[in-house]
This record gives sequence, C-alpha cells and structure tokens, in this order.
Amino acid sequence: MLDVCLLGCGGMMPLPNRWLTALLIRYNGKIIMIDCGEGTQIPMKLTGWGFKSVNTMCVTHLHADHISGLPGFLLTLGNSGKDDVLKIYGPPDMQRIYNGLTVICPELPYNVVISELPHNEVSSFEAEGLRIKSVPVDHTTNCLAYVIELDRLGKFDIERAKAQNIPMKYWKILQNGEPVKDKENEYTPEMVLGPPRKGIKLAYCTDTRPVDSIIDLIRDADLFICEGNYGDDEKLGKAIEKKHMLFSEAANMAREANVKELILTHFSPALDNPTEYLEKTRGIFNNTYVGKNMLKRKLVFDG
Amino acid sequence: MLDVCLLGCGGMMPLPNRWLTALLIRYNGKIIMIDCGEGTQIPMKLTGWGFKSVNTMCVTHLHADHISGLPGFLLTLGNSGKDDVLKIYGPPDMQRIYNGLTVICPELPYNVVISELPHNEVSSFEAEGLRIKSVPVDHTTNCLAYVIELDRLGKFDIERAKAQNIPMKYWKILQNGEPVKDKENEYTPEMVLGPPRKGIKLAYCTDTRPVDSIIDLIRDADLFICEGNYGDDEKLGKAIEKKHMLFSEAANMAREANVKELILTHFSPALDNPTEYLEKTRGIFNNTYVGKNMLKRKLVFDG
Repeated sequence: MLDVCLLGCGGMMPLPNRWLTALLIRYNGKIIMIDCGEGTQIPMKLTGWGFKSVNTMCVTHLHADHISGLPGFLLTLGNSGKDDVLKIYGPPDMQRIYNGLTVICPELPYNVVISELPHNEVSSFEAEGLRIKSVPVDHTTNCLAYVIELDRLGKFDIERAKAQNIPMKYWKILQNGEPVKDKENEYTPEMVLGPPRKGIKLAYCTDTRPVDSIIDLIRDADLFICEGNYGDDEKLGKAIEKKHMLFSEAANMAREANVKELILTHFSPALDNPTEYLEKTRGIFNNTYVGKNMLKRKLVFDG
Repeated sequence: MLDVCLLGCGGMMPLPNRWLTALLIRYNGKIIMIDCGEGTQIPMKLTGWGFKSVNTMCVTHLHADHISGLPGFLLTLGNSGKDDVLKIYGPPDMQRIYNGLTVICPELPYNVVISELPHNEVSSFEAEGLRIKSVPVDHTTNCLAYVIELDRLGKFDIERAKAQNIPMKYWKILQNGEPVKDKENEYTPEMVLGPPRKGIKLAYCTDTRPVDSIIDLIRDADLFICEGNYGDDEKLGKAIEKKHMLFSEAANMAREANVKELILTHFSPALDNPTEYLEKTRGIFNNTYVGKNMLKRKLVFDG
C-alpha cells in the first residue's frame, strides 16, 4: 500500500490558503517527497508523518515554486534527528542550485547525495523499494515528470510448494520474493509464485504542456496527479506561452492514458476557485478531482 | 505616522499557525521590511499593503529563519510590477548569502543594491525618510538590532512668521522643513519653527542575549519589538547556550530603557502557548504584549 499526500496545490507562489504543489509518498514507513517550494515544510508537519523518514526527494524542475523551500526543509530534517542519507534527484543543474540554496545551511547532520537525471530521455531508478521513472516533459526549463511503481509478485501456489516438498518455514520468505538456501537445497520464488500481478502506479506531472511521451508513461496509472494551471479553455494561448496546461488538456491525457483517477494541481494564483471548472472537466474524464491542501489517497493492490 | 505590522512571531521554522518573525514598517506609502524567513510573503500578502512599495529590507542576521524566504519574496516583488530599486541592508556576508539564495531568481525586473553593515559598531543610514540605526547584538552569528526613528520638526510659530512678513503661501513648505527662495528673499524653516519635538522611535531586536549596548539605543522607544525565545525562566541555561532571551530578560530591558510598549516575538517552536507567561512578564514590565501573526500598531506623534 502507498500513502499519498498532496501537500499543496498552488503554483508560482504560496498563498494564505494554498500551499505550493508538492507530494509525499509513504511506503513501508519511508517517505519520498516530490518538490519542495517555499513553505512546504508547514503542511508536511501537519501530516504528522514525521520528517525523519524522508529518504528521497525528487525535484521536477528548478523554478523557485518547486525548490525554494529546500534549505528550510533540510534544516528541519536535521532537527528531526535524521542522521543517515537524503537522496535528491533532479534535472541537470540540480547540484548547482543545491549549492546556492544551501549557503544558509552549511552543516547538516546527515549526508545528501545528489543525482542529476537526463533531460532528454526516460530514466529509471529504485528508491525505498519503489521503481521511479523520470520523464522529460515540455516546460520553459528542463522539467521531469515522475512515475512511481510498486510491483506485485505473483500469487503463492501452496499446491506447488507442497508438491516440491518445500519446507513450510520457507514459504513466507519465498512469498516475499526472496530465495532460500539450506544445507541440502536452494529454493527460488519462481518455484512457488504465479506470474507477476498488476502493481500500483502513480504519476506526477507538473509543469508542462501535454506531450505524447507522457501518455505512454502514465498509461493505466492508479493515480495521475497533473498540473492544471488554468481552468478556463480561453487561457489556451497563455498556457502555450507559459508552457502550462488547461484542466481540459490534463483530462484529455487522463482519458487517453486510461488512468483510474486524476487529481489536478498547480493552480495559477489568479485561479481563485478551481472547482468552478470541475464539472466541465469531468465531462472529459469523469474521475477527476480538484487538488487541495493535504489531499490524501491510499493506493492498494487490486483484489 | 508609522504603520507597523509584525508578520509572524515564530523562530527556527514556520509552523502551521505561526509565521516566522518579520516586520513591516510603512511610512508615507513606502515599506521597510525587516527579515524575510520562509513563508513571510504569505502574511505579507494578507496585510493588503502591496509588495511593490517595499523599497528597503533590513536583515538582522543570516540564519535561515530570517532570510530563507528571500528568493520567493524577490520573485513576488517582481511579479508585483516593481521596476525600480530594492535596497537590502544586512550584516557582513549579506552579499554572499544573497548570491547563493538568488540562484533560483537570476533575472529580476528591478535593481537590488546590497549594503553590508558593520558587525562591531553602531551604524546609521536614511531610508524612506526614516533614520535607521543598526546595532550589533550578541547571537551565535553576526546579528544586528535595528532602531527606526522618525524625527518631528518644531512647532510652526504663526506670530514669528507674521512678524517677519513671510508670505503665507510659503508657510506650508517651511512647516515641512523645506527652505524657500523667491526673487527677493530666502526663508528657512528655522525662522518659523520651534525646537524639534519628540519623534517616533521603534526598535526591533532578535536574535540575541540581552546586552547593555541595546538598552542605550532603545531608550524611550515608543515600541520595542524583542525576541523572547523562551517563556520559562528555567530555560536560562538554554537561552545562554543558544544566545537567545527569556521573556523576563526582554521585559527587564524594556523597563530599564523606559520604552512605552514591548511586543515579544520569535518564540521557540516548543513554546506552544506564549501567553501563559504574560502575567509574570507584566510583573516586570506592565505594557508587554505577546506577538502574534499580523499584529499591527500605529505609531503617532505625541499630542
């Protein structure tokens, strides 16, 4: 099961009632954070999930509203007792921006490891037991969408285990996908597990124009969190100029990619009431929700 | 008249219900800002005073909770239409920290002029028609208190003006302290104004231990905004270690310096309810208030 919390839903600047867009993904007690704009540590505190378990941060791009909260967050992470490692993934130039922003937090009680991901191809890495893909998108600066996947092993076949005389004390280990070796035999998960089953897929995509490469990568996602900077279709010209999306464009992508649920986020500060455009957007993709501060979801395996 | 707004009252990190400590001073439609921690632009927006009129920023010191909101604030200032100059005053190293933090806002539509103030002596400068003094204090890093003064000219003496045959059309100019010259004569304010009267004095002091040099400089201030990191006198050891103050220490300074009003601020995140210590603090200095988000005061000339 993945716990997901959209910390805020704003773009450009934090507002009195709208934190900047950022996401937490919790799995097995560890947290992955996506983006860290100014003030993001405030809703993070409200989750009650604790800071210390944040081991990985993925940064979509290096515009202030997605990264300006980094130094304050890093200091609070240090004050939380963290003393191991924080891995930060981001687009090219991540290291330089990190170096600049952390001029006010020169000594942290944990290590920070920075990886710059390619801006021109999909990249894949493992973090906290999840598979993360970074996907180049189309913004005014190098920007990455992220797809987070949790695989699900095949079903454990008791009959096959019995037929192969696999000792029952090893079943749990094999069921978790680990091989077992004792003095006499070696047992592998393949001996008792059926074909892999559908896992969990989460996609996070901001800031960008809608592009085909995204659709392939978000296909069949359980949850698609996507920017909708503008609600009004009349703003298409501005969306193209600023390289952002309309609600309707996000909804079209959700429909085309056959995702289960769409949550819109990263609203322009000028967009006072995003819900105004919800009904129309649901006409394109029915299972659409308007993001809000601290919006949570639990993503579980099917059946 | 000075309009003053304490934007927040927290120290160390912004909390869900407590913005970081920062101050706005508005005079003649122009705004001076003191400190700019993470999220400070949010209560700033709530004031409704507008960003564009911020022409001067004074930074007490370069710890994150006093400066981490700078890049976001600068960008929002740019989005507000500002296209002239922002002057930033701060302790030594201000320029280097500015250069680091603004790595995410490389192009601003206005000029920024940075002045580093001495860390070992009182310094004085003019800003927006006010006189500002920076006062070195005693923290774990170079830190400055600020004293802001608005002078008040002497009273206009109608009888003297008449006796000297000064044309009535010049009275208003002379009353505002400006000289006037026409074809025949030159008139100076000294000809019609009485001795200077008591002006307005505001002092802002965080983060520091109580030191004598502060007392001299804040003497007779109309408003003394001072840190009170800890309410409980039992925390004296911690206050000494962290170079902060107890409520009682701030109140003792207020009493000794004969200020009119004390507002406590910069509360430790562990201090949930600062008001708990108010009664005891008022036993030392009666006109003490506990700071809160968006606390406003109007400072006017006496009589």
